[in-house]
Amino acid sequence: MSVTTPTSDLSTARPGASGPLSPDDLRLLDAYWRAANFLSVGQIYLLDNPLLREPLQLDHVKPRLLGHWGTTPGLNLIYAHLNRVIRGRELNAMYVIGPGHGGPGLVANAYLEGTYSEVYPGISRDADGLRRLFRQFSFPGGIPSHVAPETPGSIHEGGELGYALAHAYGAAFDNPDLLVACVVGDGEAETGPLAASWQSNKFLDPVHDGAVLPILHLNGYKIANPTVLARIPDDELIDLLQGYGHRPYVVSGHDPAQVHQDLAAAMDDAVTEIARIQQAAREDGDTQRPRWPLIVLATPKGWTGPKEVDGLPTEGTWRSHQVPLANLADNPEHLRQLEEWLRSYRPEELFDEAGALIAELAALPPTGCARMSASPHANGGQLLKPLRLPDFGDYAVAVPAPATALHEATRVLGAFLRDVIRDNPHNFRLMGPDETASNRLGAVFEQTDRVWQGESLPTDEHLARAGRVMEVLSEHLCQGWLEGYLLTGRHGLFSCYEAFIHIVDSMVNQHAKWLKVTNDIPWRAPIASLNYLLTSHVWRQDHNGFSHQDPGFIDHVVNKKAAIVRVYLPPDANTLLSVADHCLRSRQYINLIVAGKQPALSYLDIEEAVAHCTRGLGIWEWAGNDGGDGADGLPDVVLACAGDVPTLETLAAAALLRQHLPALRVRVVNVVDLMRLQPDTEHPHGLPDAQFDALFTPDRPVIFAYHGYPWLIHRLTYRRANHVNIHVRGYKEEGTTTTPFDLVMLNDLDRFHLVIDVIDRVPGLGAAAAALRQRMVDARLRARAYTRAHGEDDPAISGWTWPS
Amino acid sequence: MSVTTPTSDLSTARPGASGPLSPDDLRLLDAYWRAANFLSVGQIYLLDNPLLREPLQLDHVKPRLLGHWGTTPGLNLIYAHLNRVIRGRELNAMYVIGPGHGGPGLVANAYLEGTYSEVYPGISRDADGLRRLFRQFSFPGGIPSHVAPETPGSIHEGGELGYALAHAYGAAFDNPDLLVACVVGDGEAETGPLAASWQSNKFLDPVHDGAVLPILHLNGYKIANPTVLARIPDDELIDLLQGYGHRPYVVSGHDPAQVHQDLAAAMDDAVTEIARIQQAAREDGDTQRPRWPLIVLATPKGWTGPKEVDGLPTEGTWRSHQVPLANLADNPEHLRQLEEWLRSYRPEELFDEAGALIAELAALPPTGCARMSASPHANGGQLLKPLRLPDFGDYAVAVPAPATALHEATRVLGAFLRDVIRDNPHNFRLMGPDETASNRLGAVFEQTDRVWQGESLPTDEHLARAGRVMEVLSEHLCQGWLEGYLLTGRHGLFSCYEAFIHIVDSMVNQHAKWLKVTNDIPWRAPIASLNYLLTSHVWRQDHNGFSHQDPGFIDHVVNKKAAIVRVYLPPDANTLLSVADHCLRSRQYINLIVAGKQPALSYLDIEEAVAHCTRGLGIWEWAGNDGGDGADGLPDVVLACAGDVPTLETLAAAALLRQHLPALRVRVVNVVDLMRLQPDTEHPHGLPDAQFDALFTPDRPVIFAYHGYPWLIHRLTYRRANHVNIHVRGYKEEGTTTTPFDLVMLNDLDRFHLVIDVIDRVPGLGAAAAALRQRMVDARLRARAYTRAHGEDDPAISGWTWPS
Repeated sequence: MSVTTPTSDLSTARPGASGPLSPDDLRLLDAYWRAANFLSVGQIYLLDNPLLREPLQLDHVKPRLLGHWGTTPGLNLIYAHLNRVIRGRELNAMYVIGPGHGGPGLVANAYLEGTYSEVYPGISRDADGLRRLFRQFSFPGGIPSHVAPETPGSIHEGGELGYALAHAYGAAFDNPDLLVACVVGDGEAETGPLAASWQSNKFLDPVHDGAVLPILHLNGYKIANPTVLARIPDDELIDLLQGYGHRPYVVSGHDPAQVHQDLAAAMDDAVTEIARIQQAAREDGDTQRPRWPLIVLATPKGWTGPKEVDGLPTEGTWRSHQVPLANLADNPEHLRQLEEWLRSYRPEELFDEAGALIAELAALPPTGCARMSASPHANGGQLLKPLRLPDFGDYAVAVPAPATALHEATRVLGAFLRDVIRDNPHNFRLMGPDETASNRLGAVFEQTDRVWQGESLPTDEHLARAGRVMEVLSEHLCQGWLEGYLLTGRHGLFSCYEAFIHIVDSMVNQHAKWLKVTNDIPWRAPIASLNYLLTSHVWRQDHNGFSHQDPGFIDHVVNKKAAIVRVYLPPDANTLLSVADHCLRSRQYINLIVAGKQPALSYLDIEEAVAHCTRGLGIWEWAGNDGGDGADGLPDVVLACAGDVPTLETLAAAALLRQHLPALRVRVVNVVDLMRLQPDTEHPHGLPDAQFDALFTPDRPVIFAYHGYPWLIHRLTYRRANHVNIHVRGYKEEGTTTTPFDLVMLNDLDRFHLVIDVIDRVPGLGAAAAALRQRMVDARLRARAYTRAHGEDDPAISGWTWPS
Repeated sequence: MSVTTPTSDLSTARPGASGPLSPDDLRLLDAYWRAANFLSVGQIYLLDNPLLREPLQLDHVKPRLLGHWGTTPGLNLIYAHLNRVIRGRELNAMYVIGPGHGGPGLVANAYLEGTYSEVYPGISRDADGLRRLFRQFSFPGGIPSHVAPETPGSIHEGGELGYALAHAYGAAFDNPDLLVACVVGDGEAETGPLAASWQSNKFLDPVHDGAVLPILHLNGYKIANPTVLARIPDDELIDLLQGYGHRPYVVSGHDPAQVHQDLAAAMDDAVTEIARIQQAAREDGDTQRPRWPLIVLATPKGWTGPKEVDGLPTEGTWRSHQVPLANLADNPEHLRQLEEWLRSYRPEELFDEAGALIAELAALPPTGCARMSASPHANGGQLLKPLRLPDFGDYAVAVPAPATALHEATRVLGAFLRDVIRDNPHNFRLMGPDETASNRLGAVFEQTDRVWQGESLPTDEHLARAGRVMEVLSEHLCQGWLEGYLLTGRHGLFSCYEAFIHIVDSMVNQHAKWLKVTNDIPWRAPIASLNYLLTSHVWRQDHNGFSHQDPGFIDHVVNKKAAIVRVYLPPDANTLLSVADHCLRSRQYINLIVAGKQPALSYLDIEEAVAHCTRGLGIWEWAGNDGGDGADGLPDVVLACAGDVPTLETLAAAALLRQHLPALRVRVVNVVDLMRLQPDTEHPHGLPDAQFDALFTPDRPVIFAYHGYPWLIHRLTYRRANHVNIHVRGYKEEGTTTTPFDLVMLNDLDRFHLVIDVIDRVPGLGAAAAALRQRMVDARLRARAYTRAHGEDDPAISGWTWPS
């Protein structure tokens, strides 16, 4: 591009200064852009004198200069031009910006449109409001420097880069009338998630979904380096974008008048092309995947800012990334340059005496909900409709006696999800990295298909132009699409192999932060929770082994704010149904459900399951022999468990203990809702100490068999009175490709070892216990030998059921 | 491609059955491929009868059928053809395969080449060895089903997808004579990290680096879905690959003879082209970025496997992803099909009477270290040379008195790293996502440049075709390149914003697992540690706010095996130097260093720093007034700290306490090596209980100011006698764009709150303490008010130094 590649010939693609804008249009559009730029620089720099009615003094300037100028003029330019096509064509549009550290630009535009003053009445549309607008930016007690939940019109935090395009597609799904304009920065474009996101157009249905208009903003530089896409030859860039399936429209230059004309023309072309594509698909029945338009905008970084600072080129280089002029207190020349820069926007032509935007500019943007800053899609809770949920009890499995019949929990859930999809055909999606069938949710394909705009072959199954299931081998895309979908007021579930959900750890952080902040913003309406079903979990990686074994996502999520995070470990099919129903009804949470897909014992019928899940944890009286918490006296030992495999091993251990040491009073406590373990001072679901002590006793040994890394249980319970007696078994990072029972033995979570743990911790059990201990040691050796000889677990172990 | 897109015309790009292979070459190459395929199927299925000398019986077959067939024949085909060009041209090559779940193929090839029997003598090159080879695969006590550390010739675990190409580039850097052939699966190609990795060719120097030959293997399907790249039109795919900067050579078909000819021709063309590029750059001084060749290989998934199973198409569809024929015990027809499949490879023509590969096939692969399975690069520890490290003491800052002078710790480190680079010009690289200068390591640019093969402009700084610094806005690429570089026997450091290192959580998991497993493989030589410098940390996100605040990577890493993980929190410049030197000398670890880049107080001169870092933690006697652990009696309170900002606040709190409550005996303990907090039974660095108790006392209140999420300290110390008295302050997910002191106040980590914590926990302090407590409450309010009024912290607070 000309800005970045002087040899480029693309910049001459639109020769001459002509274009679709009349001189008056051009004058107004440019003035609006100047106003947004002025307000952006003002936010970064000014404490006072917001309209420069006095000469600029040092005490008008903030002592700490924080913010990012470089990307901002480009974002403002695109915003102004989008406003033009929105008004001209009555579009329903929203704006997702990847370079979201250009926060001042988005705040400026929301202010110019009036939205800002509507949601923050203190920031009025006058000189006083301007002063407050400037002062609050990146100021203690004010607003963040990036696009953030506080920014009207945003669904996309401008911190971590890489997710803009995936969010934009998520917003467009099932919003056929929506145009999502998405600015992709050329720095952001180097990230993995963004690089993968270009393929999202293979999953956008032109009939039932809206449109995404990517705008690749080549300003050439990151923090300190040029960007890859700005430094490849033009033909290579065009090949790349065509290879992504787009039709690129290139706008490149640094003369504002010409760029305005060219960008206006490109915007006109792009929205015309989008309308044509949608009409072809919707009215003419064209089923070919379209080549969606894309705009490449190559303009200088920090455009309209200082050309040179201290003799070094600044506009058009990385030096304008953050604050081009710093150390004003020590450098009067910088202060002078700042004043010159601010005055170059001619604020006296833009704002009236009172400090309000002059009328002919105020008339430019769209009005009401058509303003991108006021789009209800960008405050998705406003549009949220509760899911119509079938009665999950209708999908329950019969459990005439506990721990005797096998079910595949996720398969049972699949039938429920099938009917959730049936009853919510337009606002629920199921995401997964190519694992819906593998995770045994295949029943959904009785109702819907996988979305697929690529070519189809006769041998394909359950692929269609429209569908509720989205499968792509990218956890980043699943997460990004789902976030965009939820943030615009819809519902969903992300099903994933447990180990690989770590791929989106950082995205989850950002979403959790978004939810935490929005909880404190009155005008943000609550959105549906982000629901994870983690299956193909650590204990059942029969095909895949060590690389697929990692239960640490629970730990990761628990670091986020307690008000946001919920973790559920339903032990069987019916509890999974109950938990899933609860999660799908909830708002503003990150719900983590960990459940197995393999045939596993069921323990609770549906009524018991509901009661158990409602409590979140509880004594399974049938499994113990201490009479429960209503009994006189305390048990000798508590066997606690959380997770399907640990529950199985715990019950088998309880049965062994009851058989061989009948005098030992054993209590079995199962935990579904992991957050119940925390004190109620730490988490809304936390159990009061008295209740915790009633379940886990004040002083008896607790052998806790846990699904994940054992220390998490310690972290959650360290404040409990009986913590010193809690002994946890879990995954301690010992794994390989082996049988299920071999794996629990490798990690000392097996039934035999749990029995040994009990015997080692309950005092005074005598000779029978010593003998049983030796039997357990032998049983482990025998089990291991059997597995190594036969290549499968001893059926007496793998086929264990509760003794009748 | 023809396999996946019947309308394709690319499959006719090489018409006719002719090609570079003579009939005899073709016959032998195909026979070798058949042998590898036979061994692959044998591993998945057979317990016995490895050469099919008897009719196949059910008891010859494994009871649990585990593994992935679909990708394997393609991997074997490429392997055989690579062998041909390696021999023909005496290449030094290694093989990185993305679809690493095709483990049986790589094991088969290592076995055919003899390497397998060399490293595992029990798996001999005869019928008995074959039986063991087959039996051990995915069998309890045997080997994993994926390409794994146990697989000779591999540097790449075949579990999580997406990192193959980044690993391949990492291997090629600074290995000018090496050719890294890298198979990219079309499923894997959908992941973010892989999508970003295509741009790695912008960072490969044709003069000083080796070559990467990507082979995009389009077999059309993932687990249950078609792949995106197999279902876009051919011209779109070619545009895409050209847009990535490659020259694609396409081979497509399902007739083995023709595909052999075409692939042989493509391989010839590609390696010729690579040689031409390297000669042009190395001898003719061509500085243009070359268009490196790339091979597209479109062949059926599960090629040569069962065409149909149970009436459903299998070869060429997703149904051959794992085990195409299952349930053999219940289905005699499946057993018959399996036998037919195995016999279709005509093992009797491939192996001699004893079960060894016949001589004319055994003569095909290269020999010795030229075998890809025996490449020393794939066992990088064999090639590892220790870094030449300058004396880090030469870079120390003068600290005449503790806590009085300011230094930027990372800037000090930068000078040391500059000279590490000077003294190790070919085997050390510094990776970072565009943050080397921002993280104040800029001194390195006095010695080297950033690698950059894109266009350069006169305004660019420190960009060059060759350099030691690699900057790209992708943490995935930084991590993947560095892993590949380390695994092939070199050294490096990854500097990253603390919050965004979570982007590579999952990659770190996989590398940690790799290290853990290789520790138990005698023939794998130790490699250099993976060193992280996390800076721009949670407490100093002045520009960026909440989205950039996350100290949870420490928690993430600590979940991995204790033998692998080290975490250091040097509190100042000199301790950072000492820690960095230690980490750069270490092997087989993941070293996490968290250190600030902002001006901060120095506490220890270099001798004290070395002593302190050697102990890992210790009492700072100068800061307390209890006389240290040699004193009579115990302190009244221990102020513990880990991390630079917590250390500052702790010292300021200690000074306040000593000033206002001089009778209170205060001990200050600083922790550099976080793992010292764990018991010695849990971590090699763990402190024995007696030493822990000597430092932290058996029963006095401990106020612990910690850099990260506070519960990690509880997790590490819950077994300690005094745990009940340890009260931790840290980051509790309260943040925004604000001043440094406002941020510590938001999280109750500030000096005033630490004083309050002491007063609230030490009994019997009396009226003076009550008065001080109120002063502290007031001080917090005043500090907050000052910040909000002035936009910066009260200089009396931000400028605090230790009272003289």
